[in-house]
Amino acid sequence: MAIPVETFFLNQNSQGTLQSRIQQMVAEGILSGRFRRGEKLPSTRQLAKNLGVSRITVTLAYTELQANDYLSSKGRSGYFVSENAPEPPDFGPLSTTEDKVDWDSALSRRYTIDRPIGMARPADWSRYRYPFIYGQTDSKLFDHANWRLCAMQALGAKDFASLTQDQFDLDDPELVTFIARHSLPRRGIIAGPDEILITLGAQNALWLSSQLLASDGRKVAIEDPCYPELRSLLTQSGAQVTPVAVDEKGLPPENIPDGTKVIFTTPSHQCPTSSTLPRDRRDALLKRAAELDAIVVEDDYEFEMSFLAPPSPALKSLDEDGRVVYVGSFSKSLFPGLRLGYLVGSAEFIREARALRASVLRHPPGHIQRTAAYFLSLGHYDALVRRIGLALTERRKVMEAAIAEHGLEIAGKGAHGGSSLWMQAPPECDTRKFAANLREQGVLIEPGGAFFAGPNRPQNFYRLGYSSIPTERIEDGIKRIGDALAQKKKQG
Amino acid sequence: MAIPVETFFLNQNSQGTLQSRIQQMVAEGILSGRFRRGEKLPSTRQLAKNLGVSRITVTLAYTELQANDYLSSKGRSGYFVSENAPEPPDFGPLSTTEDKVDWDSALSRRYTIDRPIGMARPADWSRYRYPFIYGQTDSKLFDHANWRLCAMQALGAKDFASLTQDQFDLDDPELVTFIARHSLPRRGIIAGPDEILITLGAQNALWLSSQLLASDGRKVAIEDPCYPELRSLLTQSGAQVTPVAVDEKGLPPENIPDGTKVIFTTPSHQCPTSSTLPRDRRDALLKRAAELDAIVVEDDYEFEMSFLAPPSPALKSLDEDGRVVYVGSFSKSLFPGLRLGYLVGSAEFIREARALRASVLRHPPGHIQRTAAYFLSLGHYDALVRRIGLALTERRKVMEAAIAEHGLEIAGKGAHGGSSLWMQAPPECDTRKFAANLREQGVLIEPGGAFFAGPNRPQNFYRLGYSSIPTERIEDGIKRIGDALAQKKKQG
Repeated sequence: MAIPVETFFLNQNSQGTLQSRIQQMVAEGILSGRFRRGEKLPSTRQLAKNLGVSRITVTLAYTELQANDYLSSKGRSGYFVSENAPEPPDFGPLSTTEDKVDWDSALSRRYTIDRPIGMARPADWSRYRYPFIYGQTDSKLFDHANWRLCAMQALGAKDFASLTQDQFDLDDPELVTFIARHSLPRRGIIAGPDEILITLGAQNALWLSSQLLASDGRKVAIEDPCYPELRSLLTQSGAQVTPVAVDEKGLPPENIPDGTKVIFTTPSHQCPTSSTLPRDRRDALLKRAAELDAIVVEDDYEFEMSFLAPPSPALKSLDEDGRVVYVGSFSKSLFPGLRLGYLVGSAEFIREARALRASVLRHPPGHIQRTAAYFLSLGHYDALVRRIGLALTERRKVMEAAIAEHGLEIAGKGAHGGSSLWMQAPPECDTRKFAANLREQGVLIEPGGAFFAGPNRPQNFYRLGYSSIPTERIEDGIKRIGDALAQKKKQG
Repeated sequence: MAIPVETFFLNQNSQGTLQSRIQQMVAEGILSGRFRRGEKLPSTRQLAKNLGVSRITVTLAYTELQANDYLSSKGRSGYFVSENAPEPPDFGPLSTTEDKVDWDSALSRRYTIDRPIGMARPADWSRYRYPFIYGQTDSKLFDHANWRLCAMQALGAKDFASLTQDQFDLDDPELVTFIARHSLPRRGIIAGPDEILITLGAQNALWLSSQLLASDGRKVAIEDPCYPELRSLLTQSGAQVTPVAVDEKGLPPENIPDGTKVIFTTPSHQCPTSSTLPRDRRDALLKRAAELDAIVVEDDYEFEMSFLAPPSPALKSLDEDGRVVYVGSFSKSLFPGLRLGYLVGSAEFIREARALRASVLRHPPGHIQRTAAYFLSLGHYDALVRRIGLALTERRKVMEAAIAEHGLEIAGKGAHGGSSLWMQAPPECDTRKFAANLREQGVLIEPGGAFFAGPNRPQNFYRLGYSSIPTERIEDGIKRIGDALAQKKKQG
C-alpha cells in the first residue's frame, strides 16, 4: 500500500531544521504504527509540493532515514518503509502528551458507572466446546444462503434509494407493511404504519420507551429478576425504579405498587426465568394498569421461540385502552448483529418516539431494513423460525433429560419454549466463580446475579442457553456442570 | 400467499355464537386489510384445531362468508379471500377503540416540539429535474458495483460472526483500525482504537457528545447559522445554548462568551455557509477554549469534499490538551443511508460515549461496518472520493459561472470545496414561499431560515447543493432561479 501524501503534516510546534522535522515526522509515523513495513512513501517531488518545501530538503531527509534503516530505496520505484524499521508498539497509548482536561468536570454525565456488571460474555464463545450461552446465532441453523440472496437483491439498482438515501425520520415502508400485515397479526395485534417504529434492536426500543415515559423521576415497576440492561437504562433516564419479584407464573399484578406510572414486563418469556404470564394474569395486569393509569411496556423479545405450545396472544392484543407499548425484535429469530427491532403503540406515542429517534440516529440503515423485508416477504423467515423451533424442541428435550440425569435444579423454564433455562445452584455456590471454573473446562454458563436488583443479589442462579450449543454436546456439557457441582458439595 | 393459522385469534370480549364470532374475525381481517384478495385461508380442520372449536362450526362460518362474497371456495384447494371481497380502507386508522390514555400526562417528555422546522425535504427529490439539494447520493457518481462486491464479501462465511454476532458495546476492529491508520492521519490526527467510537452517522456522534458534555444545563456555544438538528438536540439535552454569529471566515473565537463549557464548530466547511476556518483562527479558537477550560466538538462532516485546495489539518490535530472531540462521517463520501460516522476523543471520553451508545442501541450493525471496512481498505473509497472531487470541481465551476450570469448572490462558499453554496436573496424575499414556487417548476432549493437561531430568523437565505444535480442541468436550473427572482423584483 502506498502511504497517501495527504497524511503528512509538519508539526508546527517542533523545533529544528526543515529537514530534521521531516525526518522526525516520518520516523514518528513508523514508530506509532501508522506507516508499516514495506509501505511506499510519497515521491520526494509529491511530498515537497504538499509540504511547501524544496525537493532537495525532502531528498536529504529520505537519505538520512535510509541510512538509519527507517527507509529503504528501490531505485526508480522510490522509497519504502524498511523491512528492518523499528517495530511500533502494538497500538498502545500513542499520544505523547497528557490530557489537560479534567474529565470529571468536563463530563456532565457518566454512563460507565450504571452499566450492568458481571455480564461479560466472551466474544470468542464459538471456540468453546460447550457454549450454553444466550442470544447468539447458531451458524448451523441460520439460513445464510437466503439471507445473502436477499441482501444482494437489496443491493440492486432498483433499491438504490433505499440503500443510499437519507430517510431523515422515516422507515422502510416495505418492512413496516410486512410487520403490520404479517408479524403483528400473529401476535393478535392490529396496527397501522403510523403505529409502528423500526428501532436498532429491542435495546433501542426499550431505551426510547424509557426516555419518553420515565425521564422525569416518575415511578416505574420492573420485574425482579430482569434484563440488567433495562434496569441500567431506566436508572440512567432518571426513573424511580421498583423491582417486583416474579414467581413461576411471571409478574404478579397485585404486587405492582401504588403510584406506578410505567410497567416494564416480559409476558411471553419472562427474562430470565422464561415463565409465561397466564391469561388470567394478563387480564389482571391490564386491569391493574388501568387502575394506576399506567403505561405497560411489553417486551416480547423472543415471541417466535414458541415451539412447545402455540404462543399466547400478546398483551397488546388484549389492550383496548391504548396503554400497552409493544417491543418486538428480530435478534433471536434472525440475528442480533442485525440490530433490528420495532415499537408498536398509539400513533401519538410513536410520533414522539420517531422524533427522538431522529435526533439520536435518524433511522436504522436502509439496506438492512430492505434486506429483512425481502427475507420476511419471501417466506424465508417463517421457514427459518420453524427450523429453529424444531432444533430447539430437540435440544430442550435433551437438556431436560440431562439435567434430570445429572441432578441439576431448574428454577424456571418456559412452557411455550424460549431458548434458555433458568437454573439454581445450592445457596452457597457463587456462580461467578463457578462459571469461571467451568470456562476452563470449555463450558460457558451465564452467572445470574446481574439479573437481580441490588444490593443483596442472590449469586447462586445461572442461565443455560441452548440456542447455540449443538444437540450432541448438551449431554456431555451438562454432565460437566453436574460433576463440578457434586465436587463442590463434597469439598464444601 | 396463505394466511398462517397463527394469525387467527377469537376476540374474547365479543358477543354472539362461536360461528358468528369466527365470521366476524375473518370479515374484520379482510376489512382491515390484513387478509387480501386471493389469499388462502387455513383449512377448516387447521383453524378449528387452532381455535379449539369443532370443525363444523368453522365450516358453517366459512360457508356463510362465502355466501356474502367475503370468501370463495375452490373445491379441494380450500377457501380464499374472494376477488369481490370488500376493499379495505387504505390503511387508515384501524383501531375501532379510542385511546383511554392521556398522552399529555403519560409522556414524561415530548420530542416533536423541539424538532427543526422548515427542513421538510421531498423524499422523491430524484424525480425533480433541478435538484439543488444537499446531502443525498448521486447514483451516477457512487461506485455501486464495488460497494456490492464488498457487501457480498462481508456476507461470506468468513465474516459470519461479524454479520450476526451481538457485539454488545464493541465495534468492528477492522473498520476502527482502518480509520486509525488511514482516515485520521489524512486529517493530521493520531488516535488509537480506544480513542475511536463508530456511530450511527454524524448525527449520532453529535447526539452522544451533547448528552455527555452538556446534559446539565451548562453553557454551550454554537455557530449561527448552524445545522438545525444540532441546535435541536442540544436544546433537548438541556444545554444553555448561545449562538455565535459566524462571518466569512467562520466562527470568531473572541466572540465565544465567558462561561462557555462546550463549543460546537464546523471548521472545515462551516455549516451552512461552507467557509473554512483559517489557521490563525484555529489557533485562537484552541487558545480561547483553553482559557474557558471548554471542550470543542469539531464536526468535520464533509472533510473529503476538499477538491479545490488541500484540506487543512483538523482542529483535533492541533489539540495538545485533549480538549477537541472530533466527529467524522461517511454520509457525504459514501452515502447517508449507510448511517456510519465516528467520534475521536480522549480514551476517557470515548469510554463514556461507548457506555451510552451501548445503552441506546448497543452497536451499529456489524455487516455495514465490515462492508465499509472492505470498501475502504481495498482502495475503492479513495478512488470514489477522487471521482466525486472531479465531478464537484466541474459542477462548482458551472454553478459559479451560471450564478454570475443570472445575477444571483453568493453569501458563502468554501475555498476548499464543499458540496453547496450559501445564497442570499433580497431581504424581502421569503425563501420558504420562493422554494415552494420553484418546486412547481421542477427546481428544488433549500430555504435557509431553519439554520438560524430564533426567534427572528432571516428568511432570505437559501442553500444550493450541487452534489446531486447533473452538471448539464445546472445552468438551466440557475437560470430559472434567476428568472423567478427577477420576476419577484418586478412585481415587488
